[in-house]
Amino acid sequence: MIDRTIIEAANAAAEPGLRAEYDALGEQLDRRGLAIDSLKARVAAYGIAIPSWGVGTGGTRFARFPGAGEPAGIFDKLDDCGVIHRLTAATPRVSLHVPWDLAPAADLRAKAEEVGLGFDAMNSNTFQDQPGQASSYKFGSLSHVDGGTRAQAVEHNLACIEIGREIGSKALTVWVGDGSNFPGQSHFTRQFDRYLDSARQIYAALPEDWRLFTEHKMFEPAFYATVVQDWGTNYLIATELGPQAQCLVDLGHHAPNVNIEMIVARLIRFGKLGGFHFNDSKYGDDDLDTGSIDPYRLFLVFNELVDAEGQPGFDPAHMLDQSHNVTDPIESLMSSAMEVQRAYAQALLVDRAALSGYQEENDALMASETLKRAFRTDVGPILAMARLEAGAAIDPVATFRRSGYRAEVAARRPQSGGRGGGIV
Amino acid sequence: MIDRTIIEAANAAAEPGLRAEYDALGEQLDRRGLAIDSLKARVAAYGIAIPSWGVGTGGTRFARFPGAGEPAGIFDKLDDCGVIHRLTAATPRVSLHVPWDLAPAADLRAKAEEVGLGFDAMNSNTFQDQPGQASSYKFGSLSHVDGGTRAQAVEHNLACIEIGREIGSKALTVWVGDGSNFPGQSHFTRQFDRYLDSARQIYAALPEDWRLFTEHKMFEPAFYATVVQDWGTNYLIATELGPQAQCLVDLGHHAPNVNIEMIVARLIRFGKLGGFHFNDSKYGDDDLDTGSIDPYRLFLVFNELVDAEGQPGFDPAHMLDQSHNVTDPIESLMSSAMEVQRAYAQALLVDRAALSGYQEENDALMASETLKRAFRTDVGPILAMARLEAGAAIDPVATFRRSGYRAEVAARRPQSGGRGGGIV
Amino acid sequence: MIDRTIIEAANAAAEPGLRAEYDALGEQLDRRGLAIDSLKARVAAYGIAIPSWGVGTGGTRFARFPGAGEPAGIFDKLDDCGVIHRLTAATPRVSLHVPWDLAPAADLRAKAEEVGLGFDAMNSNTFQDQPGQASSYKFGSLSHVDGGTRAQAVEHNLACIEIGREIGSKALTVWVGDGSNFPGQSHFTRQFDRYLDSARQIYAALPEDWRLFTEHKMFEPAFYATVVQDWGTNYLIATELGPQAQCLVDLGHHAPNVNIEMIVARLIRFGKLGGFHFNDSKYGDDDLDTGSIDPYRLFLVFNELVDAEGQPGFDPAHMLDQSHNVTDPIESLMSSAMEVQRAYAQALLVDRAALSGYQEENDALMASETLKRAFRTDVGPILAMARLEAGAAIDPVATFRRSGYRAEVAARRPQSGGRGGGIV
Amino acid sequence: MIDRTIIEAANAAAEPGLRAEYDALGEQLDRRGLAIDSLKARVAAYGIAIPSWGVGTGGTRFARFPGAGEPAGIFDKLDDCGVIHRLTAATPRVSLHVPWDLAPAADLRAKAEEVGLGFDAMNSNTFQDQPGQASSYKFGSLSHVDGGTRAQAVEHNLACIEIGREIGSKALTVWVGDGSNFPGQSHFTRQFDRYLDSARQIYAALPEDWRLFTEHKMFEPAFYATVVQDWGTNYLIATELGPQAQCLVDLGHHAPNVNIEMIVARLIRFGKLGGFHFNDSKYGDDDLDTGSIDPYRLFLVFNELVDAEGQPGFDPAHMLDQSHNVTDPIESLMSSAMEVQRAYAQALLVDRAALSGYQEENDALMASETLKRAFRTDVGPILAMARLEAGAAIDPVATFRRSGYRAEVAARRPQSGGRGGGIV
Repeated sequence: MIDRTIIEAANAAAEPGLRAEYDALGEQLDRRGLAIDSLKARVAAYGIAIPSWGVGTGGTRFARFPGAGEPAGIFDKLDDCGVIHRLTAATPRVSLHVPWDLAPAADLRAKAEEVGLGFDAMNSNTFQDQPGQASSYKFGSLSHVDGGTRAQAVEHNLACIEIGREIGSKALTVWVGDGSNFPGQSHFTRQFDRYLDSARQIYAALPEDWRLFTEHKMFEPAFYATVVQDWGTNYLIATELGPQAQCLVDLGHHAPNVNIEMIVARLIRFGKLGGFHFNDSKYGDDDLDTGSIDPYRLFLVFNELVDAEGQPGFDPAHMLDQSHNVTDPIESLMSSAMEVQRAYAQALLVDRAALSGYQEENDALMASETLKRAFRTDVGPILAMARLEAGAAIDPVATFRRSGYRAEVAARRPQSGGRGGGIV
Repeated sequence: MIDRTIIEAANAAAEPGLRAEYDALGEQLDRRGLAIDSLKARVAAYGIAIPSWGVGTGGTRFARFPGAGEPAGIFDKLDDCGVIHRLTAATPRVSLHVPWDLAPAADLRAKAEEVGLGFDAMNSNTFQDQPGQASSYKFGSLSHVDGGTRAQAVEHNLACIEIGREIGSKALTVWVGDGSNFPGQSHFTRQFDRYLDSARQIYAALPEDWRLFTEHKMFEPAFYATVVQDWGTNYLIATELGPQAQCLVDLGHHAPNVNIEMIVARLIRFGKLGGFHFNDSKYGDDDLDTGSIDPYRLFLVFNELVDAEGQPGFDPAHMLDQSHNVTDPIESLMSSAMEVQRAYAQALLVDRAALSGYQEENDALMASETLKRAFRTDVGPILAMARLEAGAAIDPVATFRRSGYRAEVAARRPQSGGRGGGIV
Repeated sequence: MIDRTIIEAANAAAEPGLRAEYDALGEQLDRRGLAIDSLKARVAAYGIAIPSWGVGTGGTRFARFPGAGEPAGIFDKLDDCGVIHRLTAATPRVSLHVPWDLAPAADLRAKAEEVGLGFDAMNSNTFQDQPGQASSYKFGSLSHVDGGTRAQAVEHNLACIEIGREIGSKALTVWVGDGSNFPGQSHFTRQFDRYLDSARQIYAALPEDWRLFTEHKMFEPAFYATVVQDWGTNYLIATELGPQAQCLVDLGHHAPNVNIEMIVARLIRFGKLGGFHFNDSKYGDDDLDTGSIDPYRLFLVFNELVDAEGQPGFDPAHMLDQSHNVTDPIESLMSSAMEVQRAYAQALLVDRAALSGYQEENDALMASETLKRAFRTDVGPILAMARLEAGAAIDPVATFRRSGYRAEVAARRPQSGGRGGGIV
Repeated sequence: MIDRTIIEAANAAAEPGLRAEYDALGEQLDRRGLAIDSLKARVAAYGIAIPSWGVGTGGTRFARFPGAGEPAGIFDKLDDCGVIHRLTAATPRVSLHVPWDLAPAADLRAKAEEVGLGFDAMNSNTFQDQPGQASSYKFGSLSHVDGGTRAQAVEHNLACIEIGREIGSKALTVWVGDGSNFPGQSHFTRQFDRYLDSARQIYAALPEDWRLFTEHKMFEPAFYATVVQDWGTNYLIATELGPQAQCLVDLGHHAPNVNIEMIVARLIRFGKLGGFHFNDSKYGDDDLDTGSIDPYRLFLVFNELVDAEGQPGFDPAHMLDQSHNVTDPIESLMSSAMEVQRAYAQALLVDRAALSGYQEENDALMASETLKRAFRTDVGPILAMARLEAGAAIDPVATFRRSGYRAEVAARRPQSGGRGGGIV
C-alpha cells in the first residue's frame, strides 16, 4: 500500500497551485450563480466500483502483452484496488468475478477491510470453461440446448450469490456470451425462452435486498446473433423476471451510431436502469479508458443521470469495465474514475431551469449551448480539492509513479505469461 | 390498364420454356420430398400491399429527377397500382397516405374496384406542413411541446382512421419524424411521454377490428435523436397502448450491422410484430428495391415468418415501402413484389425438421447449410407459374415494357416538376 | 447590417466580466508556460469561409420548414454573411454555389465589399437539373455514360471557374452525386475513368494560382455506390490530375466509426489535403452544427492541423458546410465558426514537446492526458477577447437576437415555400 | 488421409442424383446460351489456398473452446489440409504462418508432396511476442518507435521470405497490428513513415518473382487507430514500395456499410489488387465462414474479378482466412472453399454483353436483374461434377463425416488446452 506520507509530500508541492485554480474557478462559478463548495461535496460523495479483473493487463484474441507486477490473485488485486482508492478516494468498492476471484469469504472481507474497500456487484462467468467442469459452454450457457448445461450455469450463478451474500454484495451481474455464429445455428425464440427459464431460476434465488443486472451486448464472442443483443431484449428480460431485475448498460455494447444517452433515458423512464459498465469505444466493445474517445458522450449520459436524481427507485450502480492493453492498469483505472467524476461534476453544472426553458421554446441552439457551457467548464480543481480533503492525491498518476509501487510489486509478484485472465 | 390480350400474347411465347423449367424444378424438389404444386399454391395465395406513394419517382434532399408519365393524383396512382397487380397478381392492396391521397371515399372505392384492388393500412403524415395548417411540425408533431400542435396531429390521425373506415382499411400506420438535431434540444422523457399521450388518444379512437402500427427509425429527418428510434422504444409504445397496437419493421430503419431477423423473432415472441415495410438498404433508410442489396437477409426474415406461421394472433401486414429514384416505379414495384414472393417461397423450402435437429445437436454447419440449400433454390418457375395461372404475366417487366403503358400515360399526364411528393 | 453601436452597447455590459475571465485564464495559462496574448493573436488571425447556401434553412427529403426572413437571393445571402462576420470577425469569406448564386461579377464584388467580405472557393452544381438544361444529371454528370452530358457538366465547371476568376476566388470545389443505386447499374471502372476524363478537362482550365478540390462522400444521393466514395478514391483523383488538385474532407462523409483525424494526417503526409467542409454528424451526412455532437473529434482534427503548420505547401481551406433545419442559420453559423476557432485554440495549447516525449516512451496514458488537458481548457475568453478587439460581439448570438435583424429582414423579404434551395 | 475408396463409395450412391441435376441444369443453361461443360472446366481449374492456422479451432479474447483432434503442429495441419483438398479438389495450396509453422524446409516439402499440396503465400507474425524474443511488440512492430524493435520485425520478415523461398512460395503477406488505443499515443505520420521505412527493407529483400501483400484492417487489436487502416493507406504503401507490392483485401477488415466490391474495382484499376483473405462478417473482423452471412456480396466481388480476367498483370491470390469457433475446421474450410467456387461460377454466368448494354442505357433495373439472374442459378451440380471428375467427393462434408477421420485423429493427437494458437 502506498504510504500516506508519500501522498502528503506530493500534495504539499501541488497544493498552492491547486488552491489558486480552485479559487479562480470558484469565482467563475460564483458569477454563474453556482457554489463551488457544494459541488465539491457532491463530487466527494460520489464513488464508482472497480472491476477486480481490471487491474490485470488485458489483451485481444491475437495477443496479450503482460505488464510488470501484475496481480497473481484476488488478494494482489485487492491491494491494487486499495491503491487506486487511496490515491483517488473515488473507488470505494470492488466488483468480483467468479471463479477468477474465489477465496474464503472471511479472507476476502479481512483483506478488503485492510485496504479500505467494500464489495460491489458479483459477476458470474459462464462464457469460459473451467478445468474439471462437467459441461462445456462452447454452445451457450443459460440458453444452451442441453438442460444439464443450463443447470450447471444456473448453479454457478447461485454460488456467486452465496459468495456475495457472505461478503456484503447486493447485486449479481450476469453477462453471457450465448449466441450463434451462423444463421440457423440456433432457433432465436427457443434459445431466448431457455435463457428466460434459466434466468428465472437465478432470480428466484436472489436475496430480497439484492438486484439482478443483466447486460446486453451486440456481438462478440458470438458473431451472427447474441441472445441478449440490445437494450430492447434486455428490457424484456428485466420485465419478465420482476422488479429486482434491471438492465446494465455498457457504453461499448451498442451498434454503431446508436444514441446511448437516449437508451439510458428510456430505461430510467421505465424503472429498469440497473447501472453501468463505464468505458469508451470507437469501434466495438473496445473497452478503452472512460472518456478517452468521446468525452462529450460520457457527459451526455451523466446529464441524464443528474436529471433523474431523486426519482423514486432511481439508484443505478456505477462500475468501470475496461481492458488495459497498453497502459498501467492502476493508472488507467485512476484516470478513468476521475473522468467519470468529471462528467458527473460537469452534469451538475447544467443550468436545468434554463435548459427546460429553451426546450419549451424550441430554442435548439441555446439548449445545446447550455449543455456545452457546463461541459466546457474545467472542473478539475473541484475534483482535485475533493481528493486533497479526503487525504488522497491531488495528482494520482504522478503520485503513483513517484511512489515506486509498481516496481515494488514487480519485484515480488511472478511475471505473468503471454495469455491471461479473461476480459469483460 | 394493360389489356389481358397483351399479357396473353407475351405469355404464349414464354410458356413452353417456363413449363420446362417448372417441370425440372418439380423433379428436383420431388427428390427433396417437396411437392411443387402445393408450394405454388401457397405462393399464389400470398399478397403484398403497394404504397400509393411508391408509384411516383422518389428523390433525395439534393434533387428529384422525375420520370415520364408520373401519376398526378391518387386516381392515376391507383391505375398504376392496378397495372402492377394485373401483371404480377401479387399486390392485391394499396396503402394510402393522407393528405396526399385525399379524395371522396366513394370515388376511391369505385376506382379501386375498377382496377381490382383493395385498401391496406392508412398512413398519416405529420412530418410535413400542409398549406393552411394552423401549427407547424418543424419541431415535432405527436410529441411537440405545444399542446395545440399535438392536438392537431392527433386530429389528423383520427381523420385518417375515418377515411380508412369508409374504404375498408383495417389499420393505421403512424410514422413521425419527431426528434431533435442537438443534444439538449428536447428532454427525452418528457418528449416521449407527450408522444405516448398523443398516441393513446389515437389508439382510443381505433375501431375494434383495427390495428395501430407504430414505426421506428434510427435517424432522418432528426439527426441527433428520434423519439421512436428503435424496436425497444417501439415495443414500449405498443405495450403501453394495448393489444391493438403493434410494431412495424422497416428493413432500412436500423443501426448499422443490426440483426433484423432477430428483432423480428423477438417481436413475434411477445406478440407485437405488426408488419413490415419491405425495401433494401446499404447505408441508411435508402429505400432501395427489396432484395437488391442483400437477398439473403430478406430470406432470413422470411425464415422467421414461415417458422411462426400458425401461431395464435400471428398476422403481420406485408407492405413495400421504397423510393424509386432511377427506375420506372412500376417496374421496381413489380420486381420487388416478386422478390418478396421469392423469399417467401425459399423460406417455405426450409427443411424445418432437419433444421431443428441440427440446432439440437449444435451442428452449426449443417444448420447453416439447411438454410442455404433452401435459399439457393431458384424458385422463379414457381412464381412464374403462379402468375401464369392467375392470368398475370410470366415476365411482368418485359410485358410491361411491351405494353406501351408508360408512353401512353406520359402522353396524357402532365410532366411533374423537379421536386415532388414525400417519400417514406 | 447590424449597426456597430448595437454591438458596442452589448459589449459594454459584458466587457468587465470578460476581462475577469480572460485575466484568470491568462494566469492559469501562465502557470503552464503559455502566453494568452499570443494565443489570442493567432485566433484573431484565423478565419473560416461561410457557405452562401448555409444562410437559408435546410431540409430533408421529407420536408423543409422555412424560417422567417430567409434570403431570397445571393445579395440577401451576402447581407446575412456580412452580419455573421461583423458579429464574429471570424468569417471573412463566402463560398458561392453556382447556379444558385449567379449574378453579375461586378455586383457580387460591390456587394461583398459593402458587407466586408471576400470570396472563397467556387462550388459547381451538377447534382441537380436546372430549368432549360439540355441533358439531365439523373444518371450522373462528370461520369455519365453519355458524352454530351459529361461535356455539359464540364462546361458548367469551366463557367464556375470563369465567374470565380472575376470575383477573386482561387479554388473550385467539385462535389458530384454520381453513383448508382443497384449492383450492376454502373461499371465501376468505366464510370471512374469517365469521371477522371471529365475532371482532367476541368483541371486543364484551372488558372495557375487556383486549386481544384474534389470531395468524397460515402453515400447519398447514391445509395449503392458513389464514384468518389472515400478518401482513397479522392486521393487517386488528386494524384491523377496533378499538383493543383487536392482532396476536400467533409467531416460527415465517412463510413461509421472511421478515424477522420488519421485520414487528415495521411492526406497531409502526401500533400493532398485541400481543405475542409466542417460540420458535425452522428449518423451520416447529417450536416449538423460543427462541434455539436463530438467536440473532441473536432479538436483531434485541429490537433493534426496545428501539428502540420509550417510544412511546405500546407495550406488547407477551411469552410463550414451545414444544413440548419431547426435553428436560425445566422446563429448556427456564428456558433459553428466559434466552435472551429475554439478547436483551433485548444489545439494551439497542446504541449507538443511533452507529447512527443510521451510518444517516444510509449506512455499512452500521459500522451492522451496531454491532449485532454488542452481540450479541457475553456478558451472561450480568448475567442471573446479577440472578437472584442476586432469590434465584433463578445456574445454574438445574444447580440444578434437583441439587434432585431431577423425581424427586420423577415418584414421585407418574401416568405419562402416549404421546399427550397439545395443543401450540400 | 482419407482413403479414395471411401470417397468412391460415397460418390457411387450420390452420382445418379447428381447426373440428373447436372443434366437438368445443363439444359437450363443451354436455353440461356451457356455451355455447362466449359463452365465446369473453369471451376475445375480454380483453386484457393488454405491458411494453415485455419485447421485449428479459433477463439475470441474471452475463450477458446477446443475441438477434438486438433492438429498439434504443422505436419498435423498439412494432414488436415490434405484431407480438405482430397475431398474438394479445390484447395491445392497451403499458406504458412511463421513461427507457428516452423519446420525444416525439406520436411515441409516432403509432407506437402505426400498430401498433394503446394505452398502459397508466407505469413509473418509480429503481432505476438515469442518466447525469448529480444524486443516486445506491445507497442508496435514495423512502426515501433524503437529502431531495434523495428529491425527485429524486419528480420523476422526476411526469415519468412527465406523459408518461403525454400518451399516454393512466391509471396509474403504482411499484416501487423500496429496502431494505438488512445488519441495522442502515436504520431500518425511519424508512425507511418517508420512503417514505410521498415516495409521498404522487406521489399528490398524480395526475390524477383515474389510479391509482397500488405493487408489493411480498420481495427483490432488496436482500438483507436491502426497504421494500415484502410485500402487508401494500403494503396499508398504499395505505391511507395514498388511494382511487386500489392494490397490484400480481407472481406472483414472494413468499416461498416463499406462497398467492398468497389474497393476491389479501384485496386484492379490501379494495378494494386494483390489478393484476398476470404471470409464473411456481420460486425467486424468476425472471420466467419465465407458466404455464410452475405453470399450476394461475395458474388459481387467475384463479379469484379471475372470482369477483370485477362487484364495484363491481373493475378490476385485467393486465400481463405477464417476462425472456426463452433464448427469442425475441416468442414468449414471445405464448405467455404466451395462457397468461393460457387461465387466464381455464378460470376461466370453473368451475361456481360447484356449487362454492358443495360449500363449504357442506364437501365438500372435490368442491369441488377442480369446480376441477380446469374446469382440465383444454383451452380451446385457444376461444382459437384467437377469434384467427381477430379476424384474428390460429391458431398465433401458428408463423406468426411462418414470417413471417421476426426475420431481417428482425436484418438492419437493430444487434446489442446482452452486457450491457443493465434487467429488472423
